[in-house]
Amino acid sequence: MEQVQVGILMGSDSDYPVMAEAAKALREFGIGFEMLVSSAHRSPKRTAEYAASAAGRGIRVLIVGAGAAAHLAGVVAAEATLPVVAVPIDSSALKGLDALLATVQMPAGIPVASMAIGKAGARNAGLFAVQILATTDAALAERLRQARNDMAAAVAHKSEQLQQRLATDGLL
Amino acid sequence: MEQVQVGILMGSDSDYPVMAEAAKALREFGIGFEMLVSSAHRSPKRTAEYAASAAGRGIRVLIVGAGAAAHLAGVVAAEATLPVVAVPIDSSALKGLDALLATVQMPAGIPVASMAIGKAGARNAGLFAVQILATTDAALAERLRQARNDMAAAVAHKSEQLQQRLATDGLL
Amino acid sequence: MEQVQVGILMGSDSDYPVMAEAAKALREFGIGFEMLVSSAHRSPKRTAEYAASAAGRGIRVLIVGAGAAAHLAGVVAAEATLPVVAVPIDSSALKGLDALLATVQMPAGIPVASMAIGKAGARNAGLFAVQILATTDAALAERLRQARNDMAAAVAHKSEQLQQRLATDGLL
Amino acid sequence: MEQVQVGILMGSDSDYPVMAEAAKALREFGIGFEMLVSSAHRSPKRTAEYAASAAGRGIRVLIVGAGAAAHLAGVVAAEATLPVVAVPIDSSALKGLDALLATVQMPAGIPVASMAIGKAGARNAGLFAVQILATTDAALAERLRQARNDMAAAVAHKSEQLQQRLATDGLL
Amino acid sequence: MEQVQVGILMGSDSDYPVMAEAAKALREFGIGFEMLVSSAHRSPKRTAEYAASAAGRGIRVLIVGAGAAAHLAGVVAAEATLPVVAVPIDSSALKGLDALLATVQMPAGIPVASMAIGKAGARNAGLFAVQILATTDAALAERLRQARNDMAAAVAHKSEQLQQRLATDGLL
Amino acid sequence: MEQVQVGILMGSDSDYPVMAEAAKALREFGIGFEMLVSSAHRSPKRTAEYAASAAGRGIRVLIVGAGAAAHLAGVVAAEATLPVVAVPIDSSALKGLDALLATVQMPAGIPVASMAIGKAGARNAGLFAVQILATTDAALAERLRQARNDMAAAVAHKSEQLQQRLATDGLL
Amino acid sequence: MEQVQVGILMGSDSDYPVMAEAAKALREFGIGFEMLVSSAHRSPKRTAEYAASAAGRGIRVLIVGAGAAAHLAGVVAAEATLPVVAVPIDSSALKGLDALLATVQMPAGIPVASMAIGKAGARNAGLFAVQILATTDAALAERLRQARNDMAAAVAHKSEQLQQRLATDGLL
Amino acid sequence: MEQVQVGILMGSDSDYPVMAEAAKALREFGIGFEMLVSSAHRSPKRTAEYAASAAGRGIRVLIVGAGAAAHLAGVVAAEATLPVVAVPIDSSALKGLDALLATVQMPAGIPVASMAIGKAGARNAGLFAVQILATTDAALAERLRQARNDMAAAVAHKSEQLQQRLATDGLL
Repeated sequence: MEQVQVGILMGSDSDYPVMAEAAKALREFGIGFEMLVSSAHRSPKRTAEYAASAAGRGIRVLIVGAGAAAHLAGVVAAEATLPVVAVPIDSSALKGLDALLATVQMPAGIPVASMAIGKAGARNAGLFAVQILATTDAALAERLRQARNDMAAAVAHKSEQLQQRLATDGLL
Repeated sequence: MEQVQVGILMGSDSDYPVMAEAAKALREFGIGFEMLVSSAHRSPKRTAEYAASAAGRGIRVLIVGAGAAAHLAGVVAAEATLPVVAVPIDSSALKGLDALLATVQMPAGIPVASMAIGKAGARNAGLFAVQILATTDAALAERLRQARNDMAAAVAHKSEQLQQRLATDGLL
Repeated sequence: MEQVQVGILMGSDSDYPVMAEAAKALREFGIGFEMLVSSAHRSPKRTAEYAASAAGRGIRVLIVGAGAAAHLAGVVAAEATLPVVAVPIDSSALKGLDALLATVQMPAGIPVASMAIGKAGARNAGLFAVQILATTDAALAERLRQARNDMAAAVAHKSEQLQQRLATDGLL
Repeated sequence: MEQVQVGILMGSDSDYPVMAEAAKALREFGIGFEMLVSSAHRSPKRTAEYAASAAGRGIRVLIVGAGAAAHLAGVVAAEATLPVVAVPIDSSALKGLDALLATVQMPAGIPVASMAIGKAGARNAGLFAVQILATTDAALAERLRQARNDMAAAVAHKSEQLQQRLATDGLL
Repeated sequence: MEQVQVGILMGSDSDYPVMAEAAKALREFGIGFEMLVSSAHRSPKRTAEYAASAAGRGIRVLIVGAGAAAHLAGVVAAEATLPVVAVPIDSSALKGLDALLATVQMPAGIPVASMAIGKAGARNAGLFAVQILATTDAALAERLRQARNDMAAAVAHKSEQLQQRLATDGLL
Repeated sequence: MEQVQVGILMGSDSDYPVMAEAAKALREFGIGFEMLVSSAHRSPKRTAEYAASAAGRGIRVLIVGAGAAAHLAGVVAAEATLPVVAVPIDSSALKGLDALLATVQMPAGIPVASMAIGKAGARNAGLFAVQILATTDAALAERLRQARNDMAAAVAHKSEQLQQRLATDGLL
Repeated sequence: MEQVQVGILMGSDSDYPVMAEAAKALREFGIGFEMLVSSAHRSPKRTAEYAASAAGRGIRVLIVGAGAAAHLAGVVAAEATLPVVAVPIDSSALKGLDALLATVQMPAGIPVASMAIGKAGARNAGLFAVQILATTDAALAERLRQARNDMAAAVAHKSEQLQQRLATDGLL
Repeated sequence: MEQVQVGILMGSDSDYPVMAEAAKALREFGIGFEMLVSSAHRSPKRTAEYAASAAGRGIRVLIVGAGAAAHLAGVVAAEATLPVVAVPIDSSALKGLDALLATVQMPAGIPVASMAIGKAGARNAGLFAVQILATTDAALAERLRQARNDMAAAVAHKSEQLQQRLATDGLL
């Protein structure tokens, strides 16, 4: 069984469809993770204890997703000196702008690394955790480079497919 | 010596010029208060302990000011069931919009009562604390009503003075 | 029959599905309330009279919901010295940003306590009213603390359930 | 002495430097006006009485300026069926965006006519009042047309002067 | 047949469902109007000619609706000295914020009176035109006052109906 | 076969329904184009090579569409001195505001010409490319003028059709 | 004397310090230009006549700067089929956001090419006009490429100078 | 001499006063770094080469600062699989909102970790780089924990000093 190196935390189980993207990215690179629900506001002790104990249990990166007044990443970062990678989630009337600002505008001293709002951000949080782990793992770094090549090839392939679509639409 | 009924917390001592407005409002109504600096991020344990112990020491309302990713009020509200009145502070490039959204967009379950950004909000936080205390203090309620009358009279007086200014400016 | 201690006001009956969340929260804590429609603009006298007479009829907290140019809470606060707790409602093209700013940016002297936009804010308005009443009601304060414990337990339970979902999705 | 046809109301005497622009525009067209300070929040009765009595005293247009949670124009419009022309004022951290949204996003039934934020808006409020009065005053309408011609000529003159500036700057 | 006193202009026929609200309000007060499509950008000469000739054909107020970079009201106001009442329309990705700012932020000298974004604004544009006409029509002013009374009564009626809904929902 | 004079680039094939509007506009004026997918981030070398080689292959204008942190137009403009016309695409929670600011706020030295967000912007990007080509092609310029006349006529026709709709709705 | 190929228009002479950046860029590349003040609102006929006649007088590109409800570029684009390059100017309380949205969100059919807000945008408007002219002028295109090389070299030079600054600040 | 483990890149030397905060944080923890100016737009090859070669030269984390349409971090992230930590800089009329959105809203596949706008963000970028390095350096992790303790102590000390200030201001 894989060693758990990344902890994924979300403020509500309704954030799961977004945060699953982070989990999928970690799985693609074979990185062990654990995933929990814990709220900055509704379960503050559970959150603080998890954050404070994570490093001691071998966790090396924390990924945190929350919406609205998204305090969870900041609260976790206050208790842990591990890198905290955050995903603002679009779950209020303000479409994630509130979550983004509440996540990214951290005061000097306690860093939180914000990704994009929503699923793209969650996938990138997973990839960024891999990048952190790859700073001391040459094989993992090589797999990241290969994945980049694959992405570039996929773009070129999509571009070829587009020509067919143009023809179908009478635009060629 | 007055009994301390209100706790004023700010995330940084640089917030003092704003939060002093809350203190002044409490002084005007003879309400005892204490004022502390404690950060949600840089001193999380101190913050949690203060919030958790406030009610036991006779505090009945908490006023909390913070800027940028303003998590302090939410973090305090997570530990206390006392009313938490918050003041978003304009201390970042985004002019307090970040602090406002991080303060007001709290998830269901843990209320934070947001006032306006900056000094007007801080003064109103003090007055709102007085209003809470006045819900069970008829004499204090009467003083609030008197203060409203004074404000209305001051507006009328300002309006009279304006006529002189119009004359000076040749607009009458 | 319970004593009516909280008045809930909304600017339009279309705000009811949001404001019902405040009523439900009060019901959970056994707090008596009344609920009315009255507009700052379409029925200003009714609104002013209600606000001015509330304290005399035993009301101790006012909860006010409105959307768009949400003036209702400010107008009520101008007539009453009771605590006014406001819920900005997302009922215009601007998704509640207009209601939030019109609600929260009150000038010094007349406080309005803004909650989050929409249903989360309405539930929190109800809970915040309970918190105000609990400042002089130890039994109610104890029930609030118990509700917090229940929330924390519910979070932990949701987290356990999440593990099943991860397994189902092949992410464990 | 001119008949007073326009009432100018502002929420605070600190709004005077902005609102004086409305007064100046009215003076240029010889329209009599009165100017008062009255707050929607700090002097609600004074405001309601002024608005409700304006038409009876011969006022035909109301110009209202306010900042932050700018409720004054809406509150006046709720009491008067005269045209209410509003000037959002930049007097908070949010640079007038709050005042603009609180002014312009009025619900169906009670119109408020919003001008631009600040001095340009105040001058235009004065001119718009003149335009309203000119709908039944051919001589005034002719003076408005003449003023437009003068503005167009001033633009052409400024354009000629610009050529000198280009030469001075070595750009010709 | 009624005399046409109000011209309603919209930039695209897709704006009709919104602008019909202005027409309905005018119909309720028996005010004759005409309604046209003309674009500031796609038919500038038609727009300028319409605006410049409106007063001569007996039009006393112009109502203008447009979305996105909503220049139409400003372009009309540049050609006419009649009061121009504008309706920003939510027809772009930015949900009407673009239309609002493009409409309301007019430079000093050429007023445009902005209503709220969308249907509420369109109805209010119609009512505001009636208010302008009523400044010299006592009977029309009386009908406006009566409509206000009807609105206030309707609010009170809605409030009564709400009690039934509370009972149905088990909240009484 | 037409000479390819315009290159259309998009960051993802999911942008095609928007960017097809640019292609259609070019087709209407008989301008040859090519259309590719290439990402600033996932295929940077492909993007840089395309941009750097475009002029040498006879391309005279580049049209670039991208969403979210829309860097593609800037990256292309950094490699090419051809005019780069950009289309911000609404493909994130922030509704294209992110794409607009990331596209338009280019630093001095490397221009990108931003069109509106979404399909209107894409069509205009195609038309703007035609306008650039028409600066040295009198026949093309004449066709642009004719298209403008057609648009004005279409507006007038829509206005006539509107009268029928008014009658149907009982508004005439 | 150089042939005038570019027309620079601004809505107010107060825009000159910004728009002079466009003129300087054109001067650097030896492109003849003319510069005028003409307002969309205060001098609409002058503006329309200038725009409609520009092509006939040999103008090939129009550069237009305006602030607040920046309609000028759209109004010019409505009358001309030449490429219109626009500069939103920060001259209102909203810091140019109003001018940007009023400029860039043009409806389908009438393109306006928006540059960045302010001086960076004005310089880029000048450079973009050069890029348009260079699409049929190989020598000019070569000079643009040379300018790019110069910019890259300047960046490298700045980077070297930075090392000295780091040493001075004790950061090396 | 320290090994260079972190590369700090900025788009313009005018960003130095902000980015120096990152350098200072690295110095405090004894982490070797290099600092360069390279623009995404004005020196794209230099930027791509730097990013592509960084890992091979022993760099483990890249810190990137840029303002306005801040593409630099994204462009660097496209060429490197090292963790890229970004600092949006407030250097345009929009006060860093443009830089924030252009930085943080990266598409899935290419992560960029955004810090707060300006100096707080730059200091945190330095600290976050230390946190990444500390994931495999227990001594460094211990120093991070000690720094957190120092920060908490400094907060408590500031709070004590505040009592003196309250006394001076007559608020005790």
